[in-house]
Amino acid sequence: MAKYKRGKRSFVFSRSPVITTWASIAGKKEGEGPLHAEFDLVSQDTYFGEKTWEQGEKKLQQLALETLAAKANLNMADFELVFSGDLLNQCIGSSFSLRNTGIPHLGLYGACSTMAESLLLAAMAVGADYADRVVAMTSSHFASSERQYRFPLGYGGQRPPTAQWTVTGAGAALICSQGSGPRIENCTVGCVQDLGIKDANNMGAAMAPSAFDTIRAHFDDLNMAPEDYDLIVTGDLGQIGKEILLELAEKSGINLGGKITDCGTLVFDNTIQDVHAGGSGCGCSAITLCGMLLNKMAAGKLERILFCGTGALLSPTSTQQGLPIPGVCHAVSIYAGRN
Amino acid sequence: MAKYKRGKRSFVFSRSPVITTWASIAGKKEGEGPLHAEFDLVSQDTYFGEKTWEQGEKKLQQLALETLAAKANLNMADFELVFSGDLLNQCIGSSFSLRNTGIPHLGLYGACSTMAESLLLAAMAVGADYADRVVAMTSSHFASSERQYRFPLGYGGQRPPTAQWTVTGAGAALICSQGSGPRIENCTVGCVQDLGIKDANNMGAAMAPSAFDTIRAHFDDLNMAPEDYDLIVTGDLGQIGKEILLELAEKSGINLGGKITDCGTLVFDNTIQDVHAGGSGCGCSAITLCGMLLNKMAAGKLERILFCGTGALLSPTSTQQGLPIPGVCHAVSIYAGRN
Repeated sequence: MAKYKRGKRSFVFSRSPVITTWASIAGKKEGEGPLHAEFDLVSQDTYFGEKTWEQGEKKLQQLALETLAAKANLNMADFELVFSGDLLNQCIGSSFSLRNTGIPHLGLYGACSTMAESLLLAAMAVGADYADRVVAMTSSHFASSERQYRFPLGYGGQRPPTAQWTVTGAGAALICSQGSGPRIENCTVGCVQDLGIKDANNMGAAMAPSAFDTIRAHFDDLNMAPEDYDLIVTGDLGQIGKEILLELAEKSGINLGGKITDCGTLVFDNTIQDVHAGGSGCGCSAITLCGMLLNKMAAGKLERILFCGTGALLSPTSTQQGLPIPGVCHAVSIYAGRN
Repeated sequence: MAKYKRGKRSFVFSRSPVITTWASIAGKKEGEGPLHAEFDLVSQDTYFGEKTWEQGEKKLQQLALETLAAKANLNMADFELVFSGDLLNQCIGSSFSLRNTGIPHLGLYGACSTMAESLLLAAMAVGADYADRVVAMTSSHFASSERQYRFPLGYGGQRPPTAQWTVTGAGAALICSQGSGPRIENCTVGCVQDLGIKDANNMGAAMAPSAFDTIRAHFDDLNMAPEDYDLIVTGDLGQIGKEILLELAEKSGINLGGKITDCGTLVFDNTIQDVHAGGSGCGCSAITLCGMLLNKMAAGKLERILFCGTGALLSPTSTQQGLPIPGVCHAVSIYAGRN
């Protein structure tokens, strides 16, 4: 199962790892949005039966993993490795969800790019026979994020129009060497970009340059073009970031026009759900991929997508210290056609 | 370059990735300790020329990467991939250090196990030809950690005898498919263990069960025994955690006796440096490995070591919410003999 590199930032699998199963767990607001029918489970309880939002987020990942095992007809012990991370300080959503499960775990921090980063690493592990039945997973929670990054909800702070709404949800995907399902063909690793954006309420603008940088590197490395994809799906640029991405591409003579969509603009209906610039958070691209996108691929409605997880690598401390917001974007090409 | 798995948690490289170069940057206190002669650079300035401790930690990683490039006689652009993470919320030490370098980056969170986790993933990437010249890197900083996890230094809080002292330092290792140097033979991935330890001032006790669990899994998976190693080096259990590990091993009939050492007990001289239970932090095992340990291997003084990075996966929020401290440990076997 040899691999080979093409270009500096991309690698191609000679035998593509298969996404055999996926699971998505959504919060109440996400369950009222346009993707409601695509989720495996929608909880009406923001705490998911736990006492704190942080533990609720842990429960979100536990539910995603349990649902994934059930859908794959596997026991939890059959998972050989889990790559996961989240937005909480020290990623406690991920580590606490895996306590005493006996499943080997490698923890990630890629901010909202984590679904793509975990998929990329899971594919690396499976593509080279290091492990099989490897899970890529992440989560985010509106209430735990608001309190950690901005204000406690009880403070009732105003949200500016550029702000995005952190998705409450978790997504998990099972990557195997055998089986049927959409396959991961190749991946492009992101570089940390910092163009000096300092507004922590405008993450889309901070992440758009990284998204463009990675998409362009992907095309260059692999000699691909927008028309090779049915969709190029960014993680959570939201409406404003998506427009910046299109502008950056246009200036470079790349016509992304009809191909680009963004999970942040898909997950909520802004005409009635009042989320301002769109959805965000690790869970945003996770529940969109592990719900609607992979469902459509399995149903033959999408053949090839480029899934581009985007992350804003700030912390409240870096913002308080007046530093700009670096961004990163990892791209994973998924193909559901017949080889 | 085929790999094969042995046991559920371990994988073996058929052609072992080589650690061709390593670099360690240490703070003032570490430079006054017993390993002072092994570091590439010791700074007398706790801020490393920056305005804040967090940015000082970013600078630590930049210095480690620059020193690594210089020692390897490479340009920064020659690094194809960096796996790194740190203890700061949202890992800003790592992401800010790589801003606009153009080096592909995959961010990790493994708490103080990060040096082992990044080595393991770098070896996976190189061992399967996904990338070459891959860097594994991490850092920690006493002052940024104290303020984030416990109290701001200015508060002058008392430290209990079980407390450990976070190392100010960064280590980086370069993993290549070719070249000379100690080689990574195999790796064992950790599982998150939670035995109910709740004292955030006793991390060693929280991590010791994970260390034992991974070392035992490593022996079982690969049919190895303590006598196969010159040293089994845990990350930062400190004096108390090391004793617990030895006790756990003895109870299970495994005699680790003369083989175990712990970076937390090596990095400071507790008889004069007053660090209580020893050193800790991602930087603890990083500067010990990327200084003394790899230096000794290169000099023929150590042939085979099992490097076991240990991490306490708590956050201040989880501690405030009364939750226990999960631990994790990843093991990497490094061999410097002639094959």
